[in-house]
Amino acid sequence: MTSRERFLAACRGQPLDRPPVWVMRQAGRYLPEYRELKAKHGFLGMVKNPALATEVTLQPLRRFPLDAAILFSDILVIPEALGQGYRFKDEGGIAMEYRLTSAADVDRLADGSVAPEKLSYVGEALKLLRTELKGQHALLGFGGSPWTLATYMVEGGSSDDFAHVKALFYAERPVFERLMEKLCAALIAYFRMQIAAGADAIQIFDSWGGALAGMDYEAGSLQWIRRIVAALPADFPVILYAKGTAPHQAAQAASGIRVLSVDTSIDLAAAHARLASGPKPIALQGNLDPVLLNTTPEIVRREATRLLESLRGRSGHIMNLGHGILPQAKLENMSALVETTVNWK
Amino acid sequence: MTSRERFLAACRGQPLDRPPVWVMRQAGRYLPEYRELKAKHGFLGMVKNPALATEVTLQPLRRFPLDAAILFSDILVIPEALGQGYRFKDEGGIAMEYRLTSAADVDRLADGSVAPEKLSYVGEALKLLRTELKGQHALLGFGGSPWTLATYMVEGGSSDDFAHVKALFYAERPVFERLMEKLCAALIAYFRMQIAAGADAIQIFDSWGGALAGMDYEAGSLQWIRRIVAALPADFPVILYAKGTAPHQAAQAASGIRVLSVDTSIDLAAAHARLASGPKPIALQGNLDPVLLNTTPEIVRREATRLLESLRGRSGHIMNLGHGILPQAKLENMSALVETTVNWK
Repeated sequence: MTSRERFLAACRGQPLDRPPVWVMRQAGRYLPEYRELKAKHGFLGMVKNPALATEVTLQPLRRFPLDAAILFSDILVIPEALGQGYRFKDEGGIAMEYRLTSAADVDRLADGSVAPEKLSYVGEALKLLRTELKGQHALLGFGGSPWTLATYMVEGGSSDDFAHVKALFYAERPVFERLMEKLCAALIAYFRMQIAAGADAIQIFDSWGGALAGMDYEAGSLQWIRRIVAALPADFPVILYAKGTAPHQAAQAASGIRVLSVDTSIDLAAAHARLASGPKPIALQGNLDPVLLNTTPEIVRREATRLLESLRGRSGHIMNLGHGILPQAKLENMSALVETTVNWK
Repeated sequence: MTSRERFLAACRGQPLDRPPVWVMRQAGRYLPEYRELKAKHGFLGMVKNPALATEVTLQPLRRFPLDAAILFSDILVIPEALGQGYRFKDEGGIAMEYRLTSAADVDRLADGSVAPEKLSYVGEALKLLRTELKGQHALLGFGGSPWTLATYMVEGGSSDDFAHVKALFYAERPVFERLMEKLCAALIAYFRMQIAAGADAIQIFDSWGGALAGMDYEAGSLQWIRRIVAALPADFPVILYAKGTAPHQAAQAASGIRVLSVDTSIDLAAAHARLASGPKPIALQGNLDPVLLNTTPEIVRREATRLLESLRGRSGHIMNLGHGILPQAKLENMSALVETTVNWK
């Protein structure tokens, strides 16, 4: 069975001898060859050049026996396509060119239908990757959830407290909804383009869904994700990455997604018992602590084995971290994680 | 019925016409009279002077009809009592004098039994408060959970990734456990002293429990909290503030605590249905979004009413925020929150 077949079988919850494995941000700063390319071309220079994005996407697959490749890109290409550019600050974090402060700002954003053309470099990279991978490895596309994108757009970048976007949500609901509708339209067009270009699955990053009050997660984030999933081909595997939203797992599982990617705070075996074994089961992805990859191969092997053993005999698991791999991760620890999964019996 | 009686009845899950209300960090920077005192004496100057700590504790009760006062203090007085001092950095966050890096560092910390004497100023402040409050308002003491204190002590201050303390947990479990035992002993002695000095309830802040992997929350945090609660007088009301640990609510509810204080990400009515209505019910505290207090009184009234209505007819709720009030909170919004609760029918 190829890695691609293994990955897609796991998404469908089919029994496997061992789960497929990939790692969020596997094409990232912990790799010397990534840092070298980034020093030459810059992050956005690599994102926007299909040949470079393809090269970076494939780098981790040359080192480690991973089952899936995830397109090297960024969730903020969507606001940029709509007319709100951004940059990475020297001190870390994101700065948007400006922040959305009014209904007029929202209306001035381009229509979502421009996304596929403005982001044609993403489609080109996916096509190149599809050719390079020869059907052996799964190819993942991705994007941000409407709420998560809105946080950057309304805060003007990274935020600690999300005060502006929450004020918009609480005080000017119609403007908030107009922004979400625009983002939904853009994301639907963007994901359809990614699927047409060869993506086997799409991961939606709701990285900041956990900032919403529990009473408001449905209105602020989940309803818009559901709308996007419903607009994609029936049964196409959508993975939802959800951070800090444990109270909403049942609602997320019923949103039309195929896989829920959970953060490290979740006891994966307990969540699997609730979500992957019912009448409408979904698969789960995750959720080793990224900090483990700063320690030693022995500890990584021990903890990865412990996670795998906690799910022994269960179907519907994709091995991954609970969050992106850290720049300080050691190569031998990444290797220990992937090898432990691949050789697990 | 006095505010104190109302608060204690809510802890016991008894029916009330309206829940008691207090606000985490209610004696804080959003109050002009607090900023004035702080400018003169400094944060630790106020903490360590019983008369000033008493004055600061009472400031919010003079402005708002709150049901409870919480001692003005800091969780890090415990590491300081054990020999590891700290300071607030100008740029925000905490810096410990040094960080614990070895078994020898842990062994060099003073024995936990020194806590009551070293922190006698806390006992004096509680006694002053007890007199001032005349039994009308509930008086809360507090401290950090062993895990949360350990994060500061091993990281050397505030942290984004908790890499050092997790490395200790994963790689040197016996040293980690020695530290936790020392902290448990200190906290048990400290809380007993607070109770003897007049605290009606104790809130344990497990602010960083959510940083632990789901599989490790019991070993890293909850087992030590359970040990502390078991060492306090039977049925004494302990409130556990838990941030980012939604997957562990059932285990927390069974740990011997009387009240679980939940973060904003929780749907309080759903959690209440699970935890406050079973055979061993606990009460819930929370959980309005602190950011609401940056908006307008109208929005605060609307959202506070919505939260209260979601729990209509249920016992065992203490109204509060899901996290500490922000320095930017407006006085009229704090007033709207408290008044809405007090006048709710």
